[in-house]
Amino acid sequence: MSRDLRALFNPRSVAILGASNDPAKWGNRLALGALRGEGSRAVYLVNRNGGEILERQAYPTLADLPEAPELVVLSVPAEGFEDAVEASLAAGAKALVGITTGLGETGDEGRAREAAIVDRVREAGAVLLGPNCLGIFDSATNLDLGWSELQGGSIGLVSQSGNLALELALLAEDYGLGFSRFASLGNQADLEAGELVRSLIDHEPTRVIAVYCEDFRDGRAFARAAQEAVEAGKPVVLLTVGGGEVSAQAARSHTGAMVSSATAVEAACRATGMQRVRSPRELIDLAQAELARVRPRGRRVVIVGDGGGHGIVASDIASAEGLELPPLSEELQGRIAPHLPDAAPTRNPVDFAGAGEQFLTIFEDVTRLLLESGEVDAALVTGYFGGYSEFSDEFQSEETEVALGMARAAADSGRALVVQSMYPRSPSLVALREAGVPVYREIEAAAWVLARLADQAEQPPRGVPELPSPVDGPPPAGYWEARELLASAGIAFPSARRVADFAEACAAATELGYPLVVKALGPLHKSDAGGVALGIESEKALEEALAEMATLSAGGYSVERMAPVGVELIAGSIQDARFGPVVLVGLGGVYAELLDDTAVALAPVDAAQAEELIRSLRGSAILAGARGRPPVDVAAAAGAVAALSRLAASRPELTEIEINPLLVTPQEALALDARALSGENGADAR
Amino acid sequence: MSRDLRALFNPRSVAILGASNDPAKWGNRLALGALRGEGSRAVYLVNRNGGEILERQAYPTLADLPEAPELVVLSVPAEGFEDAVEASLAAGAKALVGITTGLGETGDEGRAREAAIVDRVREAGAVLLGPNCLGIFDSATNLDLGWSELQGGSIGLVSQSGNLALELALLAEDYGLGFSRFASLGNQADLEAGELVRSLIDHEPTRVIAVYCEDFRDGRAFARAAQEAVEAGKPVVLLTVGGGEVSAQAARSHTGAMVSSATAVEAACRATGMQRVRSPRELIDLAQAELARVRPRGRRVVIVGDGGGHGIVASDIASAEGLELPPLSEELQGRIAPHLPDAAPTRNPVDFAGAGEQFLTIFEDVTRLLLESGEVDAALVTGYFGGYSEFSDEFQSEETEVALGMARAAADSGRALVVQSMYPRSPSLVALREAGVPVYREIEAAAWVLARLADQAEQPPRGVPELPSPVDGPPPAGYWEARELLASAGIAFPSARRVADFAEACAAATELGYPLVVKALGPLHKSDAGGVALGIESEKALEEALAEMATLSAGGYSVERMAPVGVELIAGSIQDARFGPVVLVGLGGVYAELLDDTAVALAPVDAAQAEELIRSLRGSAILAGARGRPPVDVAAAAGAVAALSRLAASRPELTEIEINPLLVTPQEALALDARALSGENGADAR
Repeated sequence: MSRDLRALFNPRSVAILGASNDPAKWGNRLALGALRGEGSRAVYLVNRNGGEILERQAYPTLADLPEAPELVVLSVPAEGFEDAVEASLAAGAKALVGITTGLGETGDEGRAREAAIVDRVREAGAVLLGPNCLGIFDSATNLDLGWSELQGGSIGLVSQSGNLALELALLAEDYGLGFSRFASLGNQADLEAGELVRSLIDHEPTRVIAVYCEDFRDGRAFARAAQEAVEAGKPVVLLTVGGGEVSAQAARSHTGAMVSSATAVEAACRATGMQRVRSPRELIDLAQAELARVRPRGRRVVIVGDGGGHGIVASDIASAEGLELPPLSEELQGRIAPHLPDAAPTRNPVDFAGAGEQFLTIFEDVTRLLLESGEVDAALVTGYFGGYSEFSDEFQSEETEVALGMARAAADSGRALVVQSMYPRSPSLVALREAGVPVYREIEAAAWVLARLADQAEQPPRGVPELPSPVDGPPPAGYWEARELLASAGIAFPSARRVADFAEACAAATELGYPLVVKALGPLHKSDAGGVALGIESEKALEEALAEMATLSAGGYSVERMAPVGVELIAGSIQDARFGPVVLVGLGGVYAELLDDTAVALAPVDAAQAEELIRSLRGSAILAGARGRPPVDVAAAAGAVAALSRLAASRPELTEIEINPLLVTPQEALALDARALSGENGADAR
Repeated sequence: MSRDLRALFNPRSVAILGASNDPAKWGNRLALGALRGEGSRAVYLVNRNGGEILERQAYPTLADLPEAPELVVLSVPAEGFEDAVEASLAAGAKALVGITTGLGETGDEGRAREAAIVDRVREAGAVLLGPNCLGIFDSATNLDLGWSELQGGSIGLVSQSGNLALELALLAEDYGLGFSRFASLGNQADLEAGELVRSLIDHEPTRVIAVYCEDFRDGRAFARAAQEAVEAGKPVVLLTVGGGEVSAQAARSHTGAMVSSATAVEAACRATGMQRVRSPRELIDLAQAELARVRPRGRRVVIVGDGGGHGIVASDIASAEGLELPPLSEELQGRIAPHLPDAAPTRNPVDFAGAGEQFLTIFEDVTRLLLESGEVDAALVTGYFGGYSEFSDEFQSEETEVALGMARAAADSGRALVVQSMYPRSPSLVALREAGVPVYREIEAAAWVLARLADQAEQPPRGVPELPSPVDGPPPAGYWEARELLASAGIAFPSARRVADFAEACAAATELGYPLVVKALGPLHKSDAGGVALGIESEKALEEALAEMATLSAGGYSVERMAPVGVELIAGSIQDARFGPVVLVGLGGVYAELLDDTAVALAPVDAAQAEELIRSLRGSAILAGARGRPPVDVAAAAGAVAALSRLAASRPELTEIEINPLLVTPQEALALDARALSGENGADAR
């Protein structure tokens, strides 16, 4: 959905329902904020007691107002919320902000009430933010409903937490950053995160979009809005929850939120180019660089310090973040050496060895040489720079000059420049920041930001795939049915026969040839329970195997050709309540859990995307043939992953599909096990 | 070495050699600093031109002083350094601080000059700090030689970088922390990091020891000093370099430092209880908690937020740091619920749901209930607390009362309390910090600190082992000799015979029995080059194998019994230039490199310590028998690791020993390969 939100963010008139003289009440804060915008619009304070509020006449009801209020803020008790909405719509409101708590976040009854309210609001052609929200802020339109702490700026913020929004504002101040617009999401009864993000794409003052969200509602719509924002040159930085089980449970109890798994959020980020952060600090750190349009094309970084210690500590941290520190060419070292003291290291890190104090201009000169060399994607200046301003006014103006020269060098070269300084608020660095170079206080923040931006450069977003129409079908009852379902989707399995007894097994053996695998077709996890026998070489062994697993084989047996050796992958899918089907691939085998090496994408993916996923695994080198083994058929594995993703996308009732292992040999990719869960079959279908 | 350093840190008189009126010179800064201590000692400014410096009479030479200077600071050009030292000793100095650069850090010649100077200094019963150092600071004795930026406090700092020391000082200020003493290490020609750390153990004002060090010199002595400090209740926090190859190389070129590997530093930390950090920020974050004597006994944490968002974000971050967030018992939830609004989540995280504003005392009441419950080792309060002081003076005094109550609750319960606040400098939180509760601005810092302290609680230091006397012996020339060396040290190998040709091989086969393994005894890496044949089942296969590897077998062949299946470990040792022998153990096999799962210790270790190392591997669950396999003989593996560590400790010329794989079966631990490098044999001995 993409509606006109002008009445919400730039109303010609606003009414505060529940305005109050009591400073302890939100209705007081809302009224005070609204009145700060009196120069831009008519402000009406409404309180059923009438009288005076904040030295203005208070109206007893909305019907008493001299004109229709375009925007009504509802700060009333939950029991009166429906009446207040009706009164607002009757008065002609086109936008409502519901501060009221005690509705959808309390359970099913509250959600039903909200749904009915939303129907009414939409019928009237209006929009509703909240309820259970904390207000809105728009810097350009001078609209401040509850957010006096926010400074104006270029960050468009959509947040499901008021306190976190406040923390973001305080952290942003350190960098001189502020907000173009803020919307407190609340219960998202009508306006959802996706629609609010979309509204920021054409919002000129917004240059970076920041989101804190616990429940993504229509997750694919949210992802598409994020994708379009990124494509329009407005980076989206996302803080969300649910990385751990504890937080997912807490978020559910916080607002009844449907929390998406970290897997689904990661898939959405990969599809859209949206960047996930884990804390308010990281959000603001990354936003600073995004606002400065720092765009390293890769991960090669040169570190520049005015003293050895800083450069070396920075090198360790940058390496640990996954940045590359290439040794500079002899030729380039030769060009920077004349600027530096004799013994100064120039290999990378470059160490001025304290020479900055004598010749401050070397910061500009050497940084320019490095950035223009083409040997690195970014320069990271670390340590003392910014502190020279402490010496004297002369030093301060010289350092500011040099800082501006460094900013010009970065702009001229088209390479990235990031600065870490122990004096981040020095006037010279304020000037540097204003000239478009991000400045951090902590070296880990500077290195982390560069590494994340390099990740971004290496992983162009693939877009949010369209979902196919759902296909009906019976849920697979067990392993054999899951195997048939996946095989019909185009996934290869070893040849197999379903047999009822030893006689049929012998016939199958004749057809398939030894060595064989036998699996009991029963409800339990086969290999844990002893329901799988490998490497059967003779009829005698076959008979023994069947006898041993007789109690597990309520559904008979699967007799299968023994697979050759190869590399084991795991492929699977989950259905996220918000983002829909997500496909996963990872390294399999006994170390799979330890490695925690998986790649994920919104399903469906095509074979090329699936291959990209597989090759993005940290352990993908194993596929290329380690220790003298031949490389395996990654294209075949990608085909299987793509087929699984299409199946998952067309069968949304299959909450989980897993192929473990997916055996990849130099010739083919074979599913050696299959599993599909649905709400209906309940237990594992393996 | 442990000498009396009173003359260095509390001299009765001090002379500044090279004092200057020029504010751009260090000699000016030193003189200014020294003069600030005139109330505590006589200060003499020395400059060969005499005249007046900083409105004091300057002496042309040390011989002109009216009394012997106990401490002389030498800020003179390198070429005059020896003369200055002689003059100082002649004048009766007992401590020298060498600011002068251009000596040991420039190469062998400089190091030789330093060695000669140190001989002279020690002969005279004096001590020398530096040269190439930046001065010293002692808060209690009012001694400030170059470090006017340092605030007094309880951190004793030893640093090889002046700029990093400055950055630490600036970061410490945020938390109201300062320094009891600071020594700039410089080239450590005489006084080394270890001796300076040791001097802080009995230094009453020092409560936490912070170290930035690039070169540990006598690493075992340093480690023993750190161990004693930790045992004396003075935590040691270490910032060092060399995590990455780039930084190691840079540090070498910075001061000619012998940089220890991250492995050796980690081993030293495990032995001593010293805590390694990776940045100045981390050092100060951890120091704050150590100064507050926060001592969680384990990793169970309850998170307390005044709004849902903060609690949930904190939960994700705490989980990611490895903290545990146990759900609180129904009984405990029942006891805290009456303090909170109806719908407030109490499971963990505990969410006040905004109720703090109405009843600020719930912060104290609920925190006390949680800390005293015994269900958690620590409470982490996150978000808004501290911000209530912004409302009014009444709120500020109430919040301060509550904060002090929280500190009392922590003290009474003996559990840990850490606070993260978006208002970390609020007066209420300054009071809280002064009452012994660390307060952080960033949630990741608070969670990281708690996790590191929990790690500490779980890994009691094992002490720095004594090194045995070195044993002589020939360096092993190749695999066979390495195998014999390790076998003689008590490490089990599969039975094997060294043979020269097929006839001898047949005889060996008869003796050993099939299946067999054949290895070519040549200089190349056997398995890469095709010099290993596994699973030989017959004389014919044996003949073929010998023929195929004929060109690789300059030294004949090893015919070995084929090992059974089992879990593969890697065991090895390195000799660190500073910390000496270090033993490593990790999971082996094809995923070993990906997992990067190793445990390290200063060698030698006994079998119990070796077993502890093996069990500390993340992947150690595999040893207990995954997927239906029986558990393997960890004690046998530990015995092999301990034997290897003793060998490494007694043969320091063996720069590297490796057993890869060390095969562990349910019955035994067998070394399937052996490798030992020395400076002499140069190439691999495999």
